[in-house]
Amino acid sequence: MPVLVMKFGGTSVATLDRIKRAAKRVGLEVAKGYDVIVIVSAMSGKTNELVGWVNETSPLYDAREYDAVVSSGENVTAGLMALTLQEMGVPARSWQGWQVPVKTTAAHANARIEDIPPENISSKFAEGMKVAVVAGFQGISPEGRITTLGRGGSDTTAVAFAAAFDADRCDIYTDVDGVYTTDPRISQKARKLHKISFEEMLELASLGAKVLQTRSVELAMRYKVKLRVLSSFEEPSDEAGTLVCDEEDTMENRPVSGIAYSRDEAKMTLISVADRPGIAAAIFGPLSEAGVNVDMIIQNISEEGRTDMTFSCPIDQVLRAQKALNGAKEKGDINFHDLIADTDVCKVSAVGIGMRSQSGVAAKMFKTLSDEGINIKVIATSEIKISVLIDRKYLELAVQSLHDAFELEKTA
Amino acid sequence: MPVLVMKFGGTSVATLDRIKRAAKRVGLEVAKGYDVIVIVSAMSGKTNELVGWVNETSPLYDAREYDAVVSSGENVTAGLMALTLQEMGVPARSWQGWQVPVKTTAAHANARIEDIPPENISSKFAEGMKVAVVAGFQGISPEGRITTLGRGGSDTTAVAFAAAFDADRCDIYTDVDGVYTTDPRISQKARKLHKISFEEMLELASLGAKVLQTRSVELAMRYKVKLRVLSSFEEPSDEAGTLVCDEEDTMENRPVSGIAYSRDEAKMTLISVADRPGIAAAIFGPLSEAGVNVDMIIQNISEEGRTDMTFSCPIDQVLRAQKALNGAKEKGDINFHDLIADTDVCKVSAVGIGMRSQSGVAAKMFKTLSDEGINIKVIATSEIKISVLIDRKYLELAVQSLHDAFELEKTA
Repeated sequence: MPVLVMKFGGTSVATLDRIKRAAKRVGLEVAKGYDVIVIVSAMSGKTNELVGWVNETSPLYDAREYDAVVSSGENVTAGLMALTLQEMGVPARSWQGWQVPVKTTAAHANARIEDIPPENISSKFAEGMKVAVVAGFQGISPEGRITTLGRGGSDTTAVAFAAAFDADRCDIYTDVDGVYTTDPRISQKARKLHKISFEEMLELASLGAKVLQTRSVELAMRYKVKLRVLSSFEEPSDEAGTLVCDEEDTMENRPVSGIAYSRDEAKMTLISVADRPGIAAAIFGPLSEAGVNVDMIIQNISEEGRTDMTFSCPIDQVLRAQKALNGAKEKGDINFHDLIADTDVCKVSAVGIGMRSQSGVAAKMFKTLSDEGINIKVIATSEIKISVLIDRKYLELAVQSLHDAFELEKTA
Repeated sequence: MPVLVMKFGGTSVATLDRIKRAAKRVGLEVAKGYDVIVIVSAMSGKTNELVGWVNETSPLYDAREYDAVVSSGENVTAGLMALTLQEMGVPARSWQGWQVPVKTTAAHANARIEDIPPENISSKFAEGMKVAVVAGFQGISPEGRITTLGRGGSDTTAVAFAAAFDADRCDIYTDVDGVYTTDPRISQKARKLHKISFEEMLELASLGAKVLQTRSVELAMRYKVKLRVLSSFEEPSDEAGTLVCDEEDTMENRPVSGIAYSRDEAKMTLISVADRPGIAAAIFGPLSEAGVNVDMIIQNISEEGRTDMTFSCPIDQVLRAQKALNGAKEKGDINFHDLIADTDVCKVSAVGIGMRSQSGVAAKMFKTLSDEGINIKVIATSEIKISVLIDRKYLELAVQSLHDAFELEKTA
């Protein structure tokens, strides 16, 4: 039997009614002759509640215990989905990560999937089970402890299962009906894209467009998984959603395909760092060890052997970053006068494969922001994106004006 | 190191503050030199919520999926408790049932613990871990699926660990400060017992006194586990709580030690059953197979080869019972005119080891109820208890008047 992977996000399984609705979609695919692997997230809000409890209990938590706690929401949904399918007469059972097993690295709270042996689930398919409901976001470490894959990790679970079972397609059901030129909650002019390249999707995801977890897109690109993003609230149709695919299979030739943003950024500045060869490694080594995801980095011009070093990281990693840097200072590895955290910033980015061949995108972006009186604090660029850090209060204004400036509401 | 088992029920871990309070008690025992195994329930209300979802999704649920869902609450508490202890500087980690592993039978939703190999946890104690926090109520079946032990199963988990690790004592922390002559919420005259025999505790627990799960008491009796019930809201003291112990180590010589009740009873009556040898087996066999816990049974005098058969069972098993009996009727195994379920009844019981040697207890009980105008629907007796089924609206009145009649407010 051909295998299909269907992943339902938190809003798609937020209530028993929604689980039923999702189960009906699964039933339609079973009726078409598929063996279906359903990946479920926790009911929406549940994981946030659990993460909140962990943070309140222990701000610098043991990530192994964090994983044991926050993985529980998916187990609930998996069991309820299996029961719902059984009630519909569809042979189904639930699997927790360790039961499959979903083997991951031991990097707790941010583990990577290393292997998904298909035997256990395949043998149940051979016995007549039609749907394997798998708790997303979780796995088991080499030491036998529960791991999680980072926020949005259920997307990665889904793509990894699609690769492991050579699935015909991996459908990601979410609360939006596809990938948009920007967040429709911010710009009413946002337009749905029918196709997008893996590369652009990667930048959009990593920049906080939040439709798909970054690693799920990387994995889909590597294993050529046909990935579709669609809404669980729309009527089923072949035209639904956005297909994420190879560049050659796309696409409008325009410089910018979308405007992404990330609200939860912090800007950290080390004031008056002793500037010497190797100083960057001395700063960013401890941050990396502490699990801080440093994004943008700028170093000021050095004066009298000292410089200021600025970087951005997710706002919930500020405590970790401070602890790591102050620790390195105490050990004498680095030397700085002050460490300032600005937690009122956000990141806005223009993304497009067309940028590679068209010039003037950066200039247009900076002028647009300047015309609105928005001050740019940090700039970072790659081949297909330009990102700026700005005050968070300007987030909506920046996204809307850039969307207008690049005329993203128009089809090419 | 000597081992101590401490179990915290749902109300004792209902909030992060309460988990902290419980963790402090654990810290006190660690300071005394114990290696501590902490068994935790789900935060209060959580398991009920999960059970509610399962019932709504699938009234005649697949118990394997029920277990996968309802076991998740304990995992959350276990992780949070481990984090709380770590924050206090106590080396601790959490264990889910399958990680220990807590090996159980495959009787899902009502599994029995078969073995708890101590090696995994012991080796961590040997490495310097002071506290193993174990998710109560759950285990793993021979097939590798998650099982649960029935409501209140965390008590049984605790006693089983105490037996497996030869613990000095098993302390059950709950929201009451011990075992009372009856439920203090119903009779203000209820008095705390300092000691109670295993046998009496067994009757009280199985009759719905709800302080301890029945099986935990059976297990404690078999393995001579020193079992103490105490409140997590009282200041620690050696006099706290109630010690459950052997009969010879007790006790006041009075006919009745306590009045127990169970609210969630149903009375089922099979009208006009064809009376023949083997009819009881034909009726109660299918009920047993369907997992219905039949409690009291009465059979009316037979007339013209037909009789009425009445039994009681937990109210949430009425559907199952109806399905099983109607199924047996369709197959021709039994024959009855009608099946009537009365779901407005409750059970009230007088329990006491002294009953063995003192007569007149039953007569006094029936007269007391009669004086209050309470009609008795079913009677059942054992060596140390007398139970009656009555209309649920009389529950409080019956408990109070019996408590008064046997003068349980007075110490012997």
